[in-house]
Amino acid sequence: MRIDIQLIPSPPKPYLLSDRMVVVIDVLRATSVMIHALSQGALEIIPVATVEEAFQMAKVFPREAILLGGERESKKIQGFDLGNSPREYTSEKVRGRKLILTTTNGTKAFHLVSSGREILAGSFFNIGAIARRCLDLDKDLLIFPSGDEGDFSLEDTVCGGMLVDLIAKTGQKPISLTDASYSAQTLYKRFETNLLEAFHLSRHGNELMKRGFGDDLAYCAQIDMTDIVPQFKDGVIKVK
Amino acid sequence: MRIDIQLIPSPPKPYLLSDRMVVVIDVLRATSVMIHALSQGALEIIPVATVEEAFQMAKVFPREAILLGGERESKKIQGFDLGNSPREYTSEKVRGRKLILTTTNGTKAFHLVSSGREILAGSFFNIGAIARRCLDLDKDLLIFPSGDEGDFSLEDTVCGGMLVDLIAKTGQKPISLTDASYSAQTLYKRFETNLLEAFHLSRHGNELMKRGFGDDLAYCAQIDMTDIVPQFKDGVIKVK
Repeated sequence: MRIDIQLIPSPPKPYLLSDRMVVVIDVLRATSVMIHALSQGALEIIPVATVEEAFQMAKVFPREAILLGGERESKKIQGFDLGNSPREYTSEKVRGRKLILTTTNGTKAFHLVSSGREILAGSFFNIGAIARRCLDLDKDLLIFPSGDEGDFSLEDTVCGGMLVDLIAKTGQKPISLTDASYSAQTLYKRFETNLLEAFHLSRHGNELMKRGFGDDLAYCAQIDMTDIVPQFKDGVIKVK
Repeated sequence: MRIDIQLIPSPPKPYLLSDRMVVVIDVLRATSVMIHALSQGALEIIPVATVEEAFQMAKVFPREAILLGGERESKKIQGFDLGNSPREYTSEKVRGRKLILTTTNGTKAFHLVSSGREILAGSFFNIGAIARRCLDLDKDLLIFPSGDEGDFSLEDTVCGGMLVDLIAKTGQKPISLTDASYSAQTLYKRFETNLLEAFHLSRHGNELMKRGFGDDLAYCAQIDMTDIVPQFKDGVIKVK
């Protein structure tokens, strides 16, 4: 199994997608929100790029069937039901509902990789389950950190590096790494015993702390709180 | 001083260039060749993107005044004087001559960043001198690894990380790192005591070994063999 990671969230070359699994990662906080919401009983997530698209999409469904969630500049959007803190997405609020989500980086990333063979949403919350699914499917893997407004993101790359490390250390499959996936694994090893330190060093982690979302950092650093493997298919993200 | 590194060699955003120093790095082997050739007395280097441009450019000068150098698929180009091994660029061959150079990654990189404030060529050969120049100039810095055919390059990023580390550890200036430059420094620290290991892990290092240029790896891992600081200005690279 060849494992690559795209360190900058530009559209991947088509040959990197057609026969590959893709794992989209936005630890702070879009994929963490998605995994949390689905683990609490949300039916599915519709990731959209803009606030306008979110309001348009909402008109398609009865109002009580959906929730509008997401952020701009880390904050809840006016007229939306929920912001972008995973802890807001409780069973009481999300069970049995569709979630229309728009965030700065993560929701767009799914559309950039939509021609992948199987597209999964990963974060520290479900990283072990994602690694097992990758080993089961046994296709070449492209890890796709959603990044920080088009730039490299330390925390997403560290999470991607943990996925590399989990898959490699099972020894179940012959693994081939690229310069990038080897580097991501190396970065992960640096923070293995203190993931929160990576969040505190990152630009986006600092922004969240400044804006009053510091508690989300420790929350999003929790490993393997669930075994669900959300898949993006036909425009929606659901538990596979 | 803010230090950033562009991990993928796509054209930088204009705001990253206009008031910054840029250090272009292609350890294996373009900037190593340039620094070596200039340290051996070459007058200047004209970096061009294609083989055709190189032959066109050669017509402008008397034949004995110039040398054609570079590679395609790591090998010397037909009709050229020299390949892309730094060791070929001896004083005997290069002294007093202009070098027209075309390589797969490195020579193109200079043209991608040509609107930078001051554009320098770095490799392990002159990394200490580059760090001192950056500290003297005291502008924000963009490190630009030339990469591996458009992809991330481990060895160039490790060299960039060494530059970050050299500047940061002097303590002479307040330094601000980005997620990317912090990560490059972390990668460098992993290989600090054995740079050659990074070359052996990298895709491009492996390609060079397969093609019979394995000796270039150890050669290019030499640190501070010269104090020259080549600058790209008005289309040519010269000792500043």
